[in-house]
Amino acid sequence: MNVTELPTPCLLLDQDRFERNVSRLKSHLDPLAVAFRPHLKTAKSIEVARRVMRGQEGPAMVSTLLEAEYYASHGVRDLVYGVGIAPAKLDRVAEIRERHGVDVTVILDSLEQAGAMAAWCLNRSARLSAMIEIDSDGSRSGAAWTDPAGLIAVAHVLTAGGVELRGVMTHAGGSYGTANADELLKAAEAERLAVASAAEILRGAGLPCPITSVGGTPTAYAARDMTGVNEVRAGVYMFGDLVQHGIGTCAVEDIAVSVLATVIGHRREKGWIIVDAGWMALSRDRGTRGQAVDWGYGLVCDAAGNAFPDLLVLDANQEHGIVGVRADSGSRVPELPVGSVVRILPNHACATCAQHDAYQVARGTEVQARWPRINGW
Amino acid sequence: MNVTELPTPCLLLDQDRFERNVSRLKSHLDPLAVAFRPHLKTAKSIEVARRVMRGQEGPAMVSTLLEAEYYASHGVRDLVYGVGIAPAKLDRVAEIRERHGVDVTVILDSLEQAGAMAAWCLNRSARLSAMIEIDSDGSRSGAAWTDPAGLIAVAHVLTAGGVELRGVMTHAGGSYGTANADELLKAAEAERLAVASAAEILRGAGLPCPITSVGGTPTAYAARDMTGVNEVRAGVYMFGDLVQHGIGTCAVEDIAVSVLATVIGHRREKGWIIVDAGWMALSRDRGTRGQAVDWGYGLVCDAAGNAFPDLLVLDANQEHGIVGVRADSGSRVPELPVGSVVRILPNHACATCAQHDAYQVARGTEVQARWPRINGW
Repeated sequence: MNVTELPTPCLLLDQDRFERNVSRLKSHLDPLAVAFRPHLKTAKSIEVARRVMRGQEGPAMVSTLLEAEYYASHGVRDLVYGVGIAPAKLDRVAEIRERHGVDVTVILDSLEQAGAMAAWCLNRSARLSAMIEIDSDGSRSGAAWTDPAGLIAVAHVLTAGGVELRGVMTHAGGSYGTANADELLKAAEAERLAVASAAEILRGAGLPCPITSVGGTPTAYAARDMTGVNEVRAGVYMFGDLVQHGIGTCAVEDIAVSVLATVIGHRREKGWIIVDAGWMALSRDRGTRGQAVDWGYGLVCDAAGNAFPDLLVLDANQEHGIVGVRADSGSRVPELPVGSVVRILPNHACATCAQHDAYQVARGTEVQARWPRINGW
Repeated sequence: MNVTELPTPCLLLDQDRFERNVSRLKSHLDPLAVAFRPHLKTAKSIEVARRVMRGQEGPAMVSTLLEAEYYASHGVRDLVYGVGIAPAKLDRVAEIRERHGVDVTVILDSLEQAGAMAAWCLNRSARLSAMIEIDSDGSRSGAAWTDPAGLIAVAHVLTAGGVELRGVMTHAGGSYGTANADELLKAAEAERLAVASAAEILRGAGLPCPITSVGGTPTAYAARDMTGVNEVRAGVYMFGDLVQHGIGTCAVEDIAVSVLATVIGHRREKGWIIVDAGWMALSRDRGTRGQAVDWGYGLVCDAAGNAFPDLLVLDANQEHGIVGVRADSGSRVPELPVGSVVRILPNHACATCAQHDAYQVARGTEVQARWPRINGW
């Protein structure tokens, strides 16, 4: 089937671009001799996961316990749930571990969480595993590696409760706001310094710290020195998006996911084309708003995936996209009669994919498969 | 079950507030003697639909053909699909009509669409129905009522093809950008003028125009004169949200949907509380950014639904919300230990609800039911 025969709006995955993206990061990381733990929150699909994990059993990272259940039920055995654990979720973590015989490691950054987790394990004589999240740039969560006593206290509370301490991890969320390669390199180095220093502190206190994990697509590509780091994580690299393009980790021609849409009208006096993909299909993500080039709600391409110059989704309602050329670009609105099919490249792949329940997988313009994806918690 | 026992994040529906919102719009519209067609795109749930429709068979409006199928399969018989029709979707429209014995009227605004629809009907000797969308404020789609010849031409092409012409409809999307009651009243009057004028033009040319429909929640509340209008549509009024509060159609205490979240950490030196609801649960909608009061990614309330003064979701990552007080407000960050449960009121109910597959329905803090909802196309 040709992509133009698909009902619109729908989520399209360009398999050639996807495979190229996977190979490209692998080629970058191979010489650095680190383990790779793909973040599967972008994918939420076992078909995608199987093509990005180094082995069929993992390792991998997830952003919800529903993802952990889903991937575990499909044979993945080494999972980290990458959102600071709420104590009320420990029952479900234990249930997933037991039902699927799978390792679901949680992350935490406070004495409160460590104490609750230790108490949970002691009360049930059950075993859980945890990593300590370390802050590397002040952008969100994480314990301070500059406070060795605090870090050691968290680790001691965990191990005293019988929690298996798997190591330390960090994510420089601030790397998404970097303006150039130099800043990006600094973000990568801040990640390395945070986990390497934290690991040294823990090991110096006689505590275990087998894993030292960093990531992030931007820092995974920027990192040159992995001294003290033995694992890298990344998620959005597999698809790419306009935000990643703005950061510099991919070209427009690398972006593997798009929303297929149909032209449903024109406002020629305004230079508008109306399409049947609004924010419900594209997401409300406006991640390029603060970047050097603002792509509105997405860059518009023809049905084969070739970008029209400066043609953007200028605004989006629930099921309507308003397409037009970038102001002052001098580009012209192409002739796209009612019924024409276009592809819209997303600002943020994680957000756009989450609006859909499946990938329509294509090579060129030929649909090859439908890969279901999950959402929810 | 108490709401604090629900797994987080999840979507909560406050049933008392919801019922009050439904009654309030009914009380406003009753004296105006117009039919009411609720827009079910906000709800996407038959349980919600049954409580807002005037009869169990409708009428109602939908934003996707999947909604049309879903509501039709649950007994709704009078549906308008409120997104300009793409000709490739007519087969599915006909299939829904036939399988469920239901009336699915489509909307269009161009000769291209009318011609394609007429050709479809002539080729199959089948019957479909349509309304002509009229532009009332230049904000999106719609034929110009100021071009009588153009309007009559669209209607003639339809009727010549055997399409049943049901009437005219408009939506003043610009009403969402109004700054005061006077501007809102003007938007409502522009809607009235557009459909009343278009109907007069069509009827004057001997064409049928039984329905003259306007809406929107903002204009539904603003309208005082319905001369020439016989149907009003509204959707988000049933739940309310912070954008509607900014426009003036509801109080904060009327907002019936919220996202339940759990505190998972603190950055006390920054005044941050980290919760397990990020943009995946809240949506990326920042609809209050351009309003007089910007609510970030949502206003934070305690587990019973009482708002904390000036406590907002300042920023959101995929599964993390960063909560803090509005800058310069002088308010203090409340003590909320790890594990505390909060409700977050959304900027835009349609967008936030779409991130979830069910409503947890509560009266006060007591969970009463779980109402499934649909997404997709």
